[in-house]
Amino acid sequence: MKTSLGPVTLLYPHPMLIIGTYDAEGRPDAMAAAWGGICSSDPPCVAFSVQKSRYTYTNLRETGACTVNIPSSAHVAEADFFGIASGRDTDKFKACGLTPLPSPHVHAPSIEEFPVVLCCRIINTVEIGVHVQFIAEILDVLVDDAVMGEDGKPDMEKISPLIYDSLRREYRNVGGYAGKAFSAGLAFKS
Amino acid sequence: MKTSLGPVTLLYPHPMLIIGTYDAEGRPDAMAAAWGGICSSDPPCVAFSVQKSRYTYTNLRETGACTVNIPSSAHVAEADFFGIASGRDTDKFKACGLTPLPSPHVHAPSIEEFPVVLCCRIINTVEIGVHVQFIAEILDVLVDDAVMGEDGKPDMEKISPLIYDSLRREYRNVGGYAGKAFSAGLAFKS
Repeated sequence: MKTSLGPVTLLYPHPMLIIGTYDAEGRPDAMAAAWGGICSSDPPCVAFSVQKSRYTYTNLRETGACTVNIPSSAHVAEADFFGIASGRDTDKFKACGLTPLPSPHVHAPSIEEFPVVLCCRIINTVEIGVHVQFIAEILDVLVDDAVMGEDGKPDMEKISPLIYDSLRREYRNVGGYAGKAFSAGLAFKS
Repeated sequence: MKTSLGPVTLLYPHPMLIIGTYDAEGRPDAMAAAWGGICSSDPPCVAFSVQKSRYTYTNLRETGACTVNIPSSAHVAEADFFGIASGRDTDKFKACGLTPLPSPHVHAPSIEEFPVVLCCRIINTVEIGVHVQFIAEILDVLVDDAVMGEDGKPDMEKISPLIYDSLRREYRNVGGYAGKAFSAGLAFKS
């Protein structure tokens, strides 16, 4: 039996994306965004939504570029801080002690201490209610050597990304292996 | 030191969304989608991307409605199967033994055995390369009583949603508590 919760923004799991931008004066800023995900395979694109009141919105409009940084759970406090403070009155990088680095390909800062960075250029925007969705082409993905597996692919356990629970307003870690994709369901193929 | 992986559709975590639709004859179908996420708070909307060649694409265009079902890891094989077979030549529900149910509010089937269902109407589409992104307003969210916590909120551990790893092509479970949102970062606020 299912209970109706009404029209709420519930989904499992939400990611925890940290959007890096420069402002018009070239100052680095970053904000946390949980409303987002991959939206196209070719060209590879990621979409994320930002309210017009956010400093990041102005920066994205100015520069047309961003990074999408994946924090490790070791930096849960810093990642959360990027969603609390505003770049309008706070140098968030300085306040939480993380390091903004210039990125290849795009005019946007990446976060040195975070294990995965997508370097993106904005190719479209879509107005959806109170949010503007930015559609960003992924020009490159940078992954820390320390989180690479022995097979040369990023290892999710070493990355230890955060999951956001929007109803409980808390973060969770990822867990163990659950099955092989495009394989676990073959038993039902006739 | 970071290594460049080039332009790949990497993000942590991807969700595992099962999109339920009826075809023109009212037959229930469902497909797996990992390219998606919440895209607006008000109205509450979810976005997911589908290729035009998919049977679900035709159904979405016909009906303008869908469900977004969150599978539990106990049904990883069935969830994977929804991404392998096509509704054009397979009754996927019958093949994997799951139960399509009519949904409140929308002309789309929900999956009885899955713990969370979003009932949605399509309000916009965006062409992005090889994918079409559907923007769907969430009219209601249904949650199985068995996965509700004692505080009356859905419990992610009981839901046990799947995470998709696109580079390793495997599924993972969610893990334990990692921090309080809008709180863990307050230490950096001056």
